[in-house]
Amino acid sequence: MTYCVGMMLDAGLVLMSDTRTNSGVDNISIFRKMFHWSVPGERMIAVMTAGNLATTQAVVSHLDFGARGLAGRRNPLLEAETMFDVAGAAGKLLWDSIYGPGAMSSGGQFSANMIVAGQIRGQDPKLYLIYPEGNFIEATFDTPFFQIGETKYGRPIIIRGYKRAMSFESAAKLLMVSFDSTIKANLSVSAPLDLLVIEKDRFEPLHERRIEGDDPYFSAISEQWGAALERALEGMADYTF
Amino acid sequence: MTYCVGMMLDAGLVLMSDTRTNSGVDNISIFRKMFHWSVPGERMIAVMTAGNLATTQAVVSHLDFGARGLAGRRNPLLEAETMFDVAGAAGKLLWDSIYGPGAMSSGGQFSANMIVAGQIRGQDPKLYLIYPEGNFIEATFDTPFFQIGETKYGRPIIIRGYKRAMSFESAAKLLMVSFDSTIKANLSVSAPLDLLVIEKDRFEPLHERRIEGDDPYFSAISEQWGAALERALEGMADYTF
Repeated sequence: MTYCVGMMLDAGLVLMSDTRTNSGVDNISIFRKMFHWSVPGERMIAVMTAGNLATTQAVVSHLDFGARGLAGRRNPLLEAETMFDVAGAAGKLLWDSIYGPGAMSSGGQFSANMIVAGQIRGQDPKLYLIYPEGNFIEATFDTPFFQIGETKYGRPIIIRGYKRAMSFESAAKLLMVSFDSTIKANLSVSAPLDLLVIEKDRFEPLHERRIEGDDPYFSAISEQWGAALERALEGMADYTF
Repeated sequence: MTYCVGMMLDAGLVLMSDTRTNSGVDNISIFRKMFHWSVPGERMIAVMTAGNLATTQAVVSHLDFGARGLAGRRNPLLEAETMFDVAGAAGKLLWDSIYGPGAMSSGGQFSANMIVAGQIRGQDPKLYLIYPEGNFIEATFDTPFFQIGETKYGRPIIIRGYKRAMSFESAAKLLMVSFDSTIKANLSVSAPLDLLVIEKDRFEPLHERRIEGDDPYFSAISEQWGAALERALEGMADYTF
């Protein structure tokens, strides 16, 4: 499994992903699921992936070949005029890798989906959820975050804790709580986590970090959150018969 | 969908279930998913169901016909010597309804599962999770609760809030928080909720209640929990770059 969240704030975008992949519980590995490319001062684009690893690595490799300008490669990330076009190009690559003539399987069983986030100068930051069929939806402040992978365990706390005006630092804390709940419930989601903060109008990462499972802050959040939940439960009146 | 939880405490068993059924979001209904039978002073048995409604109603009807002693009916609930036998009989009925020769479908697509809970005099209270294939597992204090239906949203808080020594009143509160989180995230789970408390060695319900969506206590828990989570988040130090 996998767990990735992309979140839209007034101040910009915050992304977090886990790194565990598995083909059965007896075959787990660590792979990065978050990638980004930037043209300082002009654009900053990030992608997170969930699903079949061969599919997602193929898509990311094609994006990266393009971004690095390898001979003959189109460059959807760095040439696209809008983030909408970036999402469309990423979706096309995803569809090609799952269903296209060159796909390893024509039946679509090696499926995947993606979150695409970023900003191009002169336009607002954008957040997209890309479906295996290559089409996509855009986040708005009515629905300001997207999750892919194991989305359920960590969703209630985001629903309740999210505020569009929150700081990047508060948002990172909220995401860590969401990831901690997910990691505690599903063995196929695990640290290390990757964190990326895309500040509006900066066009390069404001902050990027790999958070190990024994990271002191992450460990403290996990412990404090458990204790805080117990206190919160105790602080409410019990049911009475 | 459905959400049901059965929980084992030192003091006995607590069960909660929602009542929403759906065939698509445009066809929702209210059906009871929790049922119980008792022989005062001798045994108390409860069943919760999730899955195809035709299947689960068939199973519950057969259990009930038996319990009411309708002519020619075996009476697995009231004749069984142990809760293990009760679980086996319920599992057999479930298998028959899904896969058996009289089943509406031989392919097993109208699947369901169940939680069976209760106590027979002279034996400990027991909690079982029954699979569609009719086999089952028994809860122990290592894994003291079972969920069926939409299990994920409400699981993290149970993992963190559960204590085997907690009172029935605290457990009911914990379950309401878990159901509130689930209801907020999945439209196919909804109040009214059914609550049943089975005290050890009582052999009849200690407490039973239908909790409506606008129940003052449930509404207060929902509001207070939201506020408590916000305070808990704010009370932890923000992430720092």
